[in-house]
Amino acid sequence: MKIALLVIGSEVLDGKISDANTRQLADYLRDHHLSVNMSITVRDESQAIQQGLSTLFKDHDIIITSGGLGPTKDDLTKEAIAQFLGRTISYSEAAHFVAQRNYEKFKREFPGEEHGYCHLPERFEALSNSTGFAPALYTEHAGKLLFCGPGVPKEFKSLLQDHFIQKISGKFPPVGFIETFTVRTKRIPEEKIFGEVDKKLWDKLSIYGEVSSLPNIMGVDVGVKIVATSKEELNRKTDEVKKIFITSPLFPNIWQFGRKPIEEVIVSLANKKNISYGFAESATGGLCSHRITNISGSSQTFLGSVVCYAEEVKEKIINVSAETLQQYTAVSAQASEEMACGLAKNLNLDIAISITGYAGPGAGADGTPAGTVYITSYAKGKVTSSHYQFFGDREQLKNRFAQAAFYLLLEELEKIA
Amino acid sequence: MKIALLVIGSEVLDGKISDANTRQLADYLRDHHLSVNMSITVRDESQAIQQGLSTLFKDHDIIITSGGLGPTKDDLTKEAIAQFLGRTISYSEAAHFVAQRNYEKFKREFPGEEHGYCHLPERFEALSNSTGFAPALYTEHAGKLLFCGPGVPKEFKSLLQDHFIQKISGKFPPVGFIETFTVRTKRIPEEKIFGEVDKKLWDKLSIYGEVSSLPNIMGVDVGVKIVATSKEELNRKTDEVKKIFITSPLFPNIWQFGRKPIEEVIVSLANKKNISYGFAESATGGLCSHRITNISGSSQTFLGSVVCYAEEVKEKIINVSAETLQQYTAVSAQASEEMACGLAKNLNLDIAISITGYAGPGAGADGTPAGTVYITSYAKGKVTSSHYQFFGDREQLKNRFAQAAFYLLLEELEKIA
Repeated sequence: MKIALLVIGSEVLDGKISDANTRQLADYLRDHHLSVNMSITVRDESQAIQQGLSTLFKDHDIIITSGGLGPTKDDLTKEAIAQFLGRTISYSEAAHFVAQRNYEKFKREFPGEEHGYCHLPERFEALSNSTGFAPALYTEHAGKLLFCGPGVPKEFKSLLQDHFIQKISGKFPPVGFIETFTVRTKRIPEEKIFGEVDKKLWDKLSIYGEVSSLPNIMGVDVGVKIVATSKEELNRKTDEVKKIFITSPLFPNIWQFGRKPIEEVIVSLANKKNISYGFAESATGGLCSHRITNISGSSQTFLGSVVCYAEEVKEKIINVSAETLQQYTAVSAQASEEMACGLAKNLNLDIAISITGYAGPGAGADGTPAGTVYITSYAKGKVTSSHYQFFGDREQLKNRFAQAAFYLLLEELEKIA
Repeated sequence: MKIALLVIGSEVLDGKISDANTRQLADYLRDHHLSVNMSITVRDESQAIQQGLSTLFKDHDIIITSGGLGPTKDDLTKEAIAQFLGRTISYSEAAHFVAQRNYEKFKREFPGEEHGYCHLPERFEALSNSTGFAPALYTEHAGKLLFCGPGVPKEFKSLLQDHFIQKISGKFPPVGFIETFTVRTKRIPEEKIFGEVDKKLWDKLSIYGEVSSLPNIMGVDVGVKIVATSKEELNRKTDEVKKIFITSPLFPNIWQFGRKPIEEVIVSLANKKNISYGFAESATGGLCSHRITNISGSSQTFLGSVVCYAEEVKEKIINVSAETLQQYTAVSAQASEEMACGLAKNLNLDIAISITGYAGPGAGADGTPAGTVYITSYAKGKVTSSHYQFFGDREQLKNRFAQAAFYLLLEELEKIA
């Protein structure tokens, strides 16, 4: 069964927003052992929409569109699809009912039957939208299934969660078990993994399925797409793949069997061990705290942070001495250590991580280049400092600094019993 | 001239990463008065790559690919393209030279002529890569131009900046001037703008070009794509479009003529007026500070913040009284006001913004629903509080809280002379 997505939105091709629905669809399908085969993004133009549909209908069984279902005049999806399928649009009582219910949910009055939401191409079904106003649409054509969802990511997600599997199950019984087993490595470049550290790794893993290697900020994800006909076979193959990684010289660089974001791993480990923590963020400017607090449950052990951009804030709020700042500057091992210790003391933390450096674009006043960073952990009395020189623009550097801080925090959390 | 992008990467269709190159290409082309017409994402499979090329070659003049040029075995772009164009791959001295130079730049030794980077399809040119190892590729075929860039966003950007316009100018002289004029509105839903506030707005703007309406977090972008044959005509039309917005009943809701992120507007206004500021972030968990510090130059007036997740941090670091927390809870107008005042005092700020609320997924201990937030500004002695009830998941709520905080901060910055 081949599944494709047609993203309809000039705003994506004009760079006003990024398409988030390809990723959402992929995430959703993975949970159901399915995958996206192709994704096409076209402009809000009838011709372009029809061209996209024509390409995807050729060799896909399920086609999903996102976008262009709204109430404004640039929303052309319905008309274009009707034209492509050779169907006429008319008033539908069922659609009216669905649209009205979508409005009632937000305590808003529905404009009435002349509203576009009540008009559908023949033999289309209007689907409820639990997070927005526009109904999603569904039909079958030439043995294929067509879903049309809203472009707003949250609403597109609702379409998947509320309707997708229900509609396709029965028509396409599951063909097997597919699962990508991924490990995340740190502090080693992609080329070295397969070229130096373990030259046979790729071939060994390939026996079990398609291998992929994906460099991230400060690490590489190595994955194997394991295909099996039974749950037992899947489990057995997964165990064998795990063993390959465990016995590989790459093993010391693997920090996770899985592909969770590092902040999720940190939050669950800190909560499990009941270890409180926080950050003294200068160069990361709040990014570490933001990423940690994206994880629900983080409030259990993440107590807080100080974004100490200005020297006065470093001095007044986390006790960095004026002499240190004067003698060594704020971007120094000394300042970094005082930041971590001062934060741990004032916020009463088990672990405090400090980050001080230059995110650029320019160098520091004393010529220290952008990308220089000092990262220190204070963990129950013990202080550990590191110093890095990274490359990249401001956003990349903030991300690298935060990732290095997270690696250090995770190592400290693992050490504490 | 029609331009299309082929994104090659199973990792995108498997949801491991999001495609960033469509947006980058769009941003780059807009600066050159050009646009992306279509974008297709395919898997790292020779068949799929060739199918994508075949679709795009049909009605585009310039085709750009991103991804699959790296050194690992899932990088198939070169082979698939050679097969599609019916060309053979062989050793190229010029490619060897370019690849070697790419390595020298990073002070790394180039493996030698047997390396894949030295082998190209016939009549392909290897292009230098100023930010990575893999050379980009370029050729012409049937009067069309084909560029192949790396998938890593930074390296893809280098291809555009270092080679794209140089290669296409001459072949495709500029056809005219295209510029999208955009205004950003706040606190009004999309439907109301065109359905209630100014029913004639869409038609009035349409005279000047394609109109678009794009809902964002807590606001809507309304844009007009103005096309002109001369710079003078473009300026005249832009002035006329501006006048339509200024005289519209929508005007009080417009907070920017342009499409800059609000944090950029805040940083430049605060720096211009030399007003220091910071955040007491509970419910936003560092997001406000992170977004502000993404903007270079922010350190001039953004002094710092306190991420006060735990009650102890609110009490100890920014002087929220235990009685207030006890009597009203941390999510209350009273706590929010003490947070803003305490932060302003302890960090010595002209403006302090506090955010306290529930980002969910669950409700507060006393049953206060997720989405409840209190936002307070302390601005040179004056305190202003607002209370909102938003909807969404944890990440959406953090974003809405931050956006509401930024609107308030911007209003305070505008008020101060």
